[in-house]
Order: sequence, then C-alpha cells, then structure tokens
Amino acid sequence: MTHDASSALLTDRYELTMLQGALQSGAADRRCVFEMFARRLPENRGYGVVAGTDRFLEALQRFRFDTAALDYLADTGGFDDATLQWLADYRFTGDIWGYGEGECYFPGSPILAVEGTFAESVLLETVALSVYNHDSAIASAASRMALAAGDRPIIEMGSRRTHEMSAVAAARASYLTGFATTSNLEAGRRYGIPTAGTSAHSFVLVHDTEQGAFEAQLRALGEGTTLLVDTFDVEEAVHTAVELGGPGLGGVRVDSGDLGRTAYRVRRQLDALGAPDTRVIVTGDLDEHAIQALAVAPVDGYGVGTALVTGSGSPTASLVYKLVARSAHGGGEELVPVAKRSVGKPSKGGRKWASRRTDENGVATAEFVHEKPPQDEPRLRPLQQRLVSGGEVVGREPIGQARERHARSIAELPETVRRMHRAEPVIPTLFEQPAQV
Amino acid sequence: MTHDASSALLTDRYELTMLQGALQSGAADRRCVFEMFARRLPENRGYGVVAGTDRFLEALQRFRFDTAALDYLADTGGFDDATLQWLADYRFTGDIWGYGEGECYFPGSPILAVEGTFAESVLLETVALSVYNHDSAIASAASRMALAAGDRPIIEMGSRRTHEMSAVAAARASYLTGFATTSNLEAGRRYGIPTAGTSAHSFVLVHDTEQGAFEAQLRALGEGTTLLVDTFDVEEAVHTAVELGGPGLGGVRVDSGDLGRTAYRVRRQLDALGAPDTRVIVTGDLDEHAIQALAVAPVDGYGVGTALVTGSGSPTASLVYKLVARSAHGGGEELVPVAKRSVGKPSKGGRKWASRRTDENGVATAEFVHEKPPQDEPRLRPLQQRLVSGGEVVGREPIGQARERHARSIAELPETVRRMHRAEPVIPTLFEQPAQV
Repeated sequence: MTHDASSALLTDRYELTMLQGALQSGAADRRCVFEMFARRLPENRGYGVVAGTDRFLEALQRFRFDTAALDYLADTGGFDDATLQWLADYRFTGDIWGYGEGECYFPGSPILAVEGTFAESVLLETVALSVYNHDSAIASAASRMALAAGDRPIIEMGSRRTHEMSAVAAARASYLTGFATTSNLEAGRRYGIPTAGTSAHSFVLVHDTEQGAFEAQLRALGEGTTLLVDTFDVEEAVHTAVELGGPGLGGVRVDSGDLGRTAYRVRRQLDALGAPDTRVIVTGDLDEHAIQALAVAPVDGYGVGTALVTGSGSPTASLVYKLVARSAHGGGEELVPVAKRSVGKPSKGGRKWASRRTDENGVATAEFVHEKPPQDEPRLRPLQQRLVSGGEVVGREPIGQARERHARSIAELPETVRRMHRAEPVIPTLFEQPAQV
Repeated sequence: MTHDASSALLTDRYELTMLQGALQSGAADRRCVFEMFARRLPENRGYGVVAGTDRFLEALQRFRFDTAALDYLADTGGFDDATLQWLADYRFTGDIWGYGEGECYFPGSPILAVEGTFAESVLLETVALSVYNHDSAIASAASRMALAAGDRPIIEMGSRRTHEMSAVAAARASYLTGFATTSNLEAGRRYGIPTAGTSAHSFVLVHDTEQGAFEAQLRALGEGTTLLVDTFDVEEAVHTAVELGGPGLGGVRVDSGDLGRTAYRVRRQLDALGAPDTRVIVTGDLDEHAIQALAVAPVDGYGVGTALVTGSGSPTASLVYKLVARSAHGGGEELVPVAKRSVGKPSKGGRKWASRRTDENGVATAEFVHEKPPQDEPRLRPLQQRLVSGGEVVGREPIGQARERHARSIAELPETVRRMHRAEPVIPTLFEQPAQV
C-alpha cells in the first residue's frame, strides 16, 4: 500500500464551489478560524478519545491537487480557470492547533483549530472530519473495552467487518487505547503494531480430523500456539489439545456459546489435565459490556472484532468543523466571532483554547474552554498543542506517544470513567465566558 | 489516489499461519470451496443488497505479495522460508462464482463461492469480507432510502462521517442502488459518479451579510445553484434568495429544524414570490424513515449523510466466509461437505447454487439454494455468475450494469419490499435438500 498518493480529492465538491465563490467575492483571503468539536458524546458515554491526529497530518502532507485531480476537475465542469489555477498552486500555509492524539475529550472540547485564509482552510473540512470522525469513534469504543479488560490483553480482529482501509486505521486507533495486538498485517507493517492470530475453523475442517489439524498447527507454530477448540465438541478438543501440546500449550480459544460458563469449564479441565499455564482466550461478538461481564471468569485474553470496528453502536464520532471566527470587513488581524443560529445545531463563535482542571489529588474536575490562551497555572493543564506552523507540519509523533498520552489522560479522570452503562460526561465542560454571538 | 498498490496485507495474520500449517501437513493443496453468506439480515430488514463485487475483483488483481510485504513478513517473524517463498509466488488460480453486483440477497444466499486449493482460497478471506461487508451494508441501507425517496433524487453526502476511503466506496455503493449524485470528488473521479454540492454555512458566515454570500454564490455558480437558507432566519433568507436569484433560482436547501414543516412553509413562500420552479432540498440527519415521513411534503430532493455511511444502524453486513467442502483424503476431485458445529453459529456444508423463483406475474416467491447447478427452467433465474475463471478475472463490469441489475432485482420482489418498519425477509430461502452435515 503506498502512502504517497494525493489526498486532495477526498473532499466534498461544495468546498471547491465555495472556493470559487470566495475567490470572486474576495472572501477567499479573509483570516479564518475553523474549529472541530463534538456537540455531544454518543449516548451512555462518559468521554471520547481523540484519534486520527497523526493520520490527518499525514493526509495534509499529501493534500496537493496533482495532474490527475486537476484533469478530473476540469473535465467534470463547473470550475473556472482561476479556481483550477488556485488549486494547482495550493499549499496550506496556516497554523493548526489540536489536542494531542489519545487525549480524552468532552462535549464542546475544541479538539482542532485551523487558522488560515478561508480558501485554504475550508478545503480541509472533509478530509479532517473523515479521519477524526472514524478514528475517534473507534478509539472511544476501544478505550472502554480496554478499561473493561483491565490487565488482560485484547486482540483487535475486526478487519473483516469493515472497509479494508478502515480496518487498518481501526487497528491503529485501538492500539493507541491499550489493545495488545491486531490481526491486521497492513497495520503491523505500516504502524509497527504487533500482530496476532493462529487459525480458524476452516483449518480444522480442511484436515481429516481435529487431531490432525492440531498436530499440524503445533508442528508449524510450536507448542506456544493457541488452538481453536470449538469446531465440534469443546471438551474433546481440549483433551486432544493438551494430549498433543502438553503442559506447555500456549492457549485454547473458544469462539461460540456461553463464553463465561465455557471458560470456567475449560479452565477446570485444563487444570485437571496438568496444564494450569495454558491460557483461555475468548472471542465472538464481544463488546465492552460482555468483557465487563467476563471480568470474574477465568479468561486470559479477549479477541474483539465487529463491536470494535463499528464503534460499539456509535460508528462515527459526529465531530463537526465550523467557522468560528474571521477577520472583519476591510481585513486586518482582528478576528470576529461568528456562529450560525440553525435550530438545534448551536455553535459558539470565537477562537477557543482549552485546559483540564485537576484537584489537589490530580483528579480532573473540569474541561475549561477559554477565550484566550490559558495562563500558566497549577492544576490547569493546557490541551492544545501546535500541529502545523506556517504550513509546516510539526506535530507528527510515533504511535507510542499517543498510547502513553491516552493512558495518562484516562488515569487523570474520575473513577466514574469505568462506568459502562448509562454513563454521562465524567467532567463538565465550562466555558470561561458566555458565548459572544 | 493510486489503484496499483498491493492488497495482499489487507489480511489477517491467521490466514498466513494456517497456510504455514497446511503447507507442512499437506492440506494446502486440497481442493476447497469457501462460501460467503449472511446467517441473517439486520433486524427489521426485508432484503440485503450485494455490493463490492467489482471492488473485490479489482483487489484480487492487486493481491500479490510484493517485496515490501515479504520483507515485513520476514521481519515480523513466525513464518518459515517455505511459506515466504510460497507467498512470493502466489497467484490465485481457481474459480470464483458470485451473485451479480446490485442483486438482492437473503439469509443463506451463497453470494460468493471461491473454488481452489485451501492455501490459495483461505488467503482471500479477509479482503473479500472487508470489501463485501462494507459495501453491502451501505448498499442495503441506501436501497431502502432510494425506495423511500421514489422519484426524488438523493445526494450522498456522508464522506465526513466515515473513514476517508470508506467514503469513496460508500458513494459508489449508494449510487448503484439509485442515488443520483455524491458529494465525494474521488468517487466522481474514480467511478464516474456525478458529483453535487454548492455551499456550507461557513460560506454565509465568512461574508459580511447573507445577501453578500448569496450574491457571491450566484455570480460564481449561476442562478441554477442551490442556496443554503437556514444560517440565520429561513424566511428572510428565502426572500433574499429569490430577490437575488429571481424565478430561475435552482433551489434552496434547509439543513435544520422540522424539515417537513419548514418545507411546506418555504414552498408556499417560494410560490408566493413567483418562484414555483425553485426546488426545496432538505438535508440533516435523514434516514429511510425520515425520508418516508417526508413523502407527502413538498420536497424536491434529499441529501443523506451519516445514516448512509453508517448503514443506518447496521454498519456491517455480517457476511461470513466459510469452508463448506473439500476433497477427501487421498485427493481426487470429489468434494466432501464440511461444517462446524459451534453453538449458535450453524453453517450448511456443501457447494451451493442459487436461483430466484418467480410466479406467473414475474414476482419473486423464493430464493432457491440447490446442491447442483440449477436446470434451465422457466421462472427460475440463476443468480451466480462466473467472476474468475482459472485465476483470470472475467466478471468486472461498469457500475452502470450493477445499477441496472439492482433496479431489476428490486422490481421483481414483492411489494413488501417497501416496508421500512419491522420488515422481515420478503421471500423465504429454501434449501433444495436437507443439509448433509
């Protein structure tokens, strides 16, 4: 998979028609601030997780209208020469501030602020939202699963249930929230995420007997492998597995039935067979609630697929990208807050900064949204960092940093963060002053 | 966006570990049939729509382990030289049969049958499922929206709510079910789908006045354009729009509030202002139910975003890829049906063929699943066609053909296909004989 293709057409047509209109009216050059935020969290969620930052910055580096893109736009019609020429020369030259990847967010958190001319900033709307909405939806669901699993590792194995490229991004988003491994090889290659997986039911079925399949797998992958034991009869399969693999057998996997009851039965059987170190791995339609329900069962690891890649009921983070300020008539540097007044879709005008307030024990108490950059203050942690400076991408980082940031961010939130059912935002979002518009 | 990158690592690791085991045990060369099907439809759905066929065939053409892939696999560890060498030489040499793209399907419909050796067929599991599960989920939701909309056009505009590459595939999947246009430029370039879109609230807000914004848009895009009228006050905006655009104004768009009531109000206002031909376009959290509820309102077109790209509550089609038959011990051409017996996840062994039975009026009455290729019979339409023959892809087709096939397939189903609430499969799936396993 190449990384160097242009990302410029991952864009809604209306961004280019607006560009054309703004070039003619003169609004194209107005200084603007676009802000990305969520009006609310998905139902029953206590927090969201920012993800997609590094992928967005990477897409921004590829956001150039190359010949193929320009030829298409010329052919499709509706764009004048001035617009096409402007696109040919396009480079984002502004500044972007954003929450660090892996940071938790709340309703109204200004997780991205894009500052530049109207023309250069409006073009990034779709690609920014696509990346953040997908990755943040997955990470927000994954983080809850990782919390529910505690110290037990989770394998991400949902590639087959989502678009083939979403699968790669989903593996990345889940890894940064604490998942141990992914089944997805491209995610392994592209992001260095450890990969895992041993065999499916088809491997048992293609052999004449289950025993033959287990022998083949042990020979090829070693005794540390995990054997899939629910193709026919779990008890028989576990017996065969230990007989062939010995006490050093790595694990057995159960993918169907009542996973809790089966885990207890299999654990007892393994212990009785002298294989107390053989792990019990469960998979099969798990989500954060099922993982939580299995917390007391003798389970050593989980595999999560469908629920992960579909955001466990919330497949999009519903982030929006809104113009919140622009320079006044006649230009100049001063920015005027703006906001639409559409029914049921409020937004607050003005460039915003955010910081997280903590109490004397280091526990977060509020998300503060300020109208100016926050002062240096104890117990007030600034949340935005510079991602792009004068058009230059300065905020890329290895995924390990996002993973560490997420762990720190979760550790700072109140205990209610572990609530899986009927959760509400675990800290309030406080706006420093009433909105001006 | 390039199309030529290898797709071989869009694969779960366990397919390669199974390959290694099967190469050692000798099972790798067994003749196999893998079948793709859905155990059930999403709740409250009367039918599913096959989509992804052409994208899967395109991915199959790129499914080669190139140097980058092989280097990664060697580095990551766990694979022996024989396996890596086998992968370096990999080409699928078997046969693939499948439902035509756009065809409707039902529980148990064998929408894809992959025939080849175990080794060459098991490797396609993830990429096939990823493509079909995503595209079919979107097409299945889109088809219902298109039915609910009737003759009124729908613009697909969900790119921002899903992964940037899913967005391109979603535009394609919705177009083949009858959507008129997409906002996504890459879908326009790649698949020739007509694109649409004019302006967002930010375009109004970046100008000093709404009037200034409307003037700019009319100047740049002509009087046939659609003006967004809900940034501040709908009534005032409609007045300004007609004042500036005249009776030839293409349309006005409303994106918030009670769309039905607002559509009535705006229609009356437009008529009173002498603009009876100006269209009323509504957008904003529409799904098939909301579209159906607006059927009697004076609406001329819909824009659908979030609900489309998230499959309207069912973001994956839950298709599975199962080994259903393999050659017997000692080789030979005869295939033996196989099936696992995992609790709650039944599958029926054996290669299957399918056809749709119609009554004397041409209305579908059943999905027939046969154990042999169906005989030529009146009122029995074979559903599988050859997609790959001896490794050669023979089934690619322009998207227009899938679009036509879908329209025919829908027209053939009973009237209950239009049921949006609490639907059940509109025809039964009948298996010619009891399953053998």
